[in-house]
Amino acid sequence: MKILHTAISAQKISLGLRKKNKIIGFVPTMGYLHEGHLSLIKTARKKADTVFVSIFVNPLQFGPQEDLAKYPRDFKRDEKFCREAGVNFIFYPNVKEMYPENYSTYVNVENITEKLEGEIRPDHFRGVATVVLKLLNIVQPHFAVFGQKDAQQACVIKKMVEDLNVNTKIIVCPTVREKGGLAMSSRNTYLSLEQRKDAAYLFKALEYAKRKIQTENYNRDIDFLKSQMTKLIKSRSTVTKIDYISFNDNRTLAEIDSLKNIENKEILVSLAVRFSNLRLIDNIIIKR
Amino acid sequence: MKILHTAISAQKISLGLRKKNKIIGFVPTMGYLHEGHLSLIKTARKKADTVFVSIFVNPLQFGPQEDLAKYPRDFKRDEKFCREAGVNFIFYPNVKEMYPENYSTYVNVENITEKLEGEIRPDHFRGVATVVLKLLNIVQPHFAVFGQKDAQQACVIKKMVEDLNVNTKIIVCPTVREKGGLAMSSRNTYLSLEQRKDAAYLFKALEYAKRKIQTENYNRDIDFLKSQMTKLIKSRSTVTKIDYISFNDNRTLAEIDSLKNIENKEILVSLAVRFSNLRLIDNIIIKR
Repeated sequence: MKILHTAISAQKISLGLRKKNKIIGFVPTMGYLHEGHLSLIKTARKKADTVFVSIFVNPLQFGPQEDLAKYPRDFKRDEKFCREAGVNFIFYPNVKEMYPENYSTYVNVENITEKLEGEIRPDHFRGVATVVLKLLNIVQPHFAVFGQKDAQQACVIKKMVEDLNVNTKIIVCPTVREKGGLAMSSRNTYLSLEQRKDAAYLFKALEYAKRKIQTENYNRDIDFLKSQMTKLIKSRSTVTKIDYISFNDNRTLAEIDSLKNIENKEILVSLAVRFSNLRLIDNIIIKR
Repeated sequence: MKILHTAISAQKISLGLRKKNKIIGFVPTMGYLHEGHLSLIKTARKKADTVFVSIFVNPLQFGPQEDLAKYPRDFKRDEKFCREAGVNFIFYPNVKEMYPENYSTYVNVENITEKLEGEIRPDHFRGVATVVLKLLNIVQPHFAVFGQKDAQQACVIKKMVEDLNVNTKIIVCPTVREKGGLAMSSRNTYLSLEQRKDAAYLFKALEYAKRKIQTENYNRDIDFLKSQMTKLIKSRSTVTKIDYISFNDNRTLAEIDSLKNIENKEILVSLAVRFSNLRLIDNIIIKR
């Protein structure tokens, strides 16, 4: 396994691999790797000759009030993790390498970035789209693997790749969960024992919605479902705020406000919940 | 020579050529080709195994009050032109192919797009950057060739390619001029005989600035130069308005307001002038 610090060195290696007809798989991450990332790397490992992982805590996708400075980092641990997972190259640039002085180009995906996470975190997806496009241009992968946990991110990246004719296939892998149901996240490291127990109720609420929607002849409306989910989550004492609970078309992110006429659609039920300073997101996809 | 109408067919051919180690040169155009384009194609022809030309009048770079509908088009003529110039592939998509329904991704290059043309044509460079990035992703060229006549466009594209780590070299070729000095442009076709004669004074004014700046110990300020250039251009009766005459650093486009301390800098002197409905731009690069 090799660690690359500059865009030019990574791009050179990738172009060389492409000339030799090697299939390149890519897993972009912000580091502090966990089982969720491992499942992405395993997926890449299965389909690719060469697996690239990038580790870069992208300042562009953090708001001024967000946790950029204290986002967890441990490169030595990540390096070992990648080596054991069979990664071939880690692309590990610093901020100056990605955004040199006078950097000024940004990618905006309109419409689908304006709701859910985008509504609460303005410019977040501009940062995500910009860094992912840069990484795809650097690593030149045949495919890139993302986690379903960041559902809107996956939609935004798919849309960007399609709109800009980027020659990379986007693969989205199911969310990996802890035993109690809590979605794996680097940020979970900050949860107290009690918060961690309560955080499992996010998935319980999502499963409740799934069970109800898939019940034949279920005829309550979505507002009722939302209020029941809200009750369930608010019953946990360490929950300080629910930012949103939302039902959307999983492709267009159009809001779904009724369970009528949703045959053949994938319903994305997503939520964001705060535990004091910590903010967790989760989601489930439901086919009726 | 082959004509390709879809992004997917062009991309497939390009990726195949790259695998065979063929060098791909690319000349993006809006069609209605002239001697200026020919010089770009010739440059590509010299350095590449395979030359792609795109012909696409990009609606995204026209403002609502601009000449999109009446922009000159003649594909049969362009096709013949390309064949005679030794082009291998014309990429000739329609608007739906480039911007399907629900298209929503845009590339913004900040700062350098806010002055000169960008000040008068808001969103123009957003349209340019977006379409050029799409075309580079489709054609996958090793290098792309642009004309110096659109000086700010060349700066914006170079900046975008650098910022986004695009794996394409940008080559800028000198402006080709008619005998009297008028810069070649598809829009020249709309000039009356008298306007065409007067339009030659744009270059005369630029040459005047060059001559003065390169005169040893020349010590007038830039405002004086601008006023002399303005006088010269306004002396022509078909000129209706000067949008700007501007002196800028050719790399950063920072405004130059004094001839002191400009050693080793390339000075871009650029102007935009209206002849009734028609708007012409021109520029010259000066090294002191």
